[in-house]
Amino acid sequence: MAHLFCITASFMLERIRIVLIGTSHPGNIGAAARAMKTMGLEQLALVAPRCEGITPEAIARASGADDILERATHHDSLDTALTDCRWVVGASARSRHLPWPLCSPREFSARLPGEMQGHDVTVALVFGREDKGLTNEELQRCHTHVHIPTSSDYSSLNLAAAVQVLAYECRQAALATPSGLSEAMPGSVHPFGVEWDNPLANHADTERFFEHLERTLTDIGFHDPANPRQLMARLRRLYMRSRMDVMELNMLRGILTRVDRLQNPPTGPADQDESPH
Amino acid sequence: MAHLFCITASFMLERIRIVLIGTSHPGNIGAAARAMKTMGLEQLALVAPRCEGITPEAIARASGADDILERATHHDSLDTALTDCRWVVGASARSRHLPWPLCSPREFSARLPGEMQGHDVTVALVFGREDKGLTNEELQRCHTHVHIPTSSDYSSLNLAAAVQVLAYECRQAALATPSGLSEAMPGSVHPFGVEWDNPLANHADTERFFEHLERTLTDIGFHDPANPRQLMARLRRLYMRSRMDVMELNMLRGILTRVDRLQNPPTGPADQDESPH
Repeated sequence: MAHLFCITASFMLERIRIVLIGTSHPGNIGAAARAMKTMGLEQLALVAPRCEGITPEAIARASGADDILERATHHDSLDTALTDCRWVVGASARSRHLPWPLCSPREFSARLPGEMQGHDVTVALVFGREDKGLTNEELQRCHTHVHIPTSSDYSSLNLAAAVQVLAYECRQAALATPSGLSEAMPGSVHPFGVEWDNPLANHADTERFFEHLERTLTDIGFHDPANPRQLMARLRRLYMRSRMDVMELNMLRGILTRVDRLQNPPTGPADQDESPH
Repeated sequence: MAHLFCITASFMLERIRIVLIGTSHPGNIGAAARAMKTMGLEQLALVAPRCEGITPEAIARASGADDILERATHHDSLDTALTDCRWVVGASARSRHLPWPLCSPREFSARLPGEMQGHDVTVALVFGREDKGLTNEELQRCHTHVHIPTSSDYSSLNLAAAVQVLAYECRQAALATPSGLSEAMPGSVHPFGVEWDNPLANHADTERFFEHLERTLTDIGFHDPANPRQLMARLRRLYMRSRMDVMELNMLRGILTRVDRLQNPPTGPADQDESPH
């Protein structure tokens, strides 16, 4: 039974990706790897670190978790680190401009098993820079933000400590999942409380939709990229929190394509109409 | 303190509307009123009852809750019963065609205080016909469905009994809310876990948006009302579960208006462009 727990817990934990953006100190990368390994997490993605990633200091601080460092993936942009992810959670001290769905670490833990239903679901936990966290653009690529409550007298939680707390909550979620993660996964609840008819969209497809949406809204004169105000941020927030499934996303892209044609009618003599959905 | 509890609990309970659609038996309306009154609920809306509503039998079964019957509102359509509601919950034995967000009565109770933040929020609990429940069209006007789990051997829960269970859960929610419902409402959590920047859209505005969406999609040839497939149902499901706020809804309507103009350009010589958002 203990062995079964280990297998199913690690099946869940191995699909959780810790993403560190713009880290300044190799020691923090090493310490984050160590925090991950203590809780059974394996996937580390480094996005545009502002230091040489794997230095002797990083390895020293990893203290035996060098395998995590060795297997870490390196990315120029956050998007490539998230391509296959279906739930993206940003560690944040609250959204600065626009309120964004927010949960506590405990709520994150409670939702995790449901979010990870299905064999191919990867979840990302995104952590920002030591000095200034995540940018608004990065925060707006997250489905939800998670805020670690700290003392109001002393809120200076360092990067590896934040990774440690959320990695711990991941492990708690994995251990609390009674009978392993399968397609059906008894004992956990789908994000919508019911078995869904389509998989939720991944990050790459979602970003392609937002690019298409912005292009179309610009073409029809509703959006001015030179004076964006909060239009795209607000539309992102709306669609991100609905957690689009792949069929819904395809329908929305179909609508955009139809609008594109109104704006720029095809010039061919006998245009074949696409099936609407 | 007990007195304070009473005041704040009733402030919450008086903004919960029980909506009965197509009820066949006056006795059931009376029994539902009695169930409501035992738990402190006051608002009863009757939509197209298939019986004379307030008969001597209804009054007998109400057993002292006649005031609820007397103040009950009567409606030809579900939409007019829901106009001002910002959270619409349908009592359902699972959606038949399309999975829809679903919660248990306990989860409904836990979410209720957060959903009711703000003084002008009315919540509706919608119950269908004794014999065949809610239609798909009615179910698709709900943000979420709530399913009362019953014995697999004997699942015959009558209408007033279903009202009783959910009215009880409403009261539990009201009593558990520690310090009254105000704008800020400490002790309960906003649906998105954070203080939001705009009120959520009400039912009437949401329905106007869906009418506009369907009209525009039909005009641009993406939607064929004669062969609807599940297009509008799926779009409803997507936008309903995102819980649009009033600003988001206005932005989407602005986009639709812009697309309408592409399809039917204004004929005036010097058309004034509306502000995009």
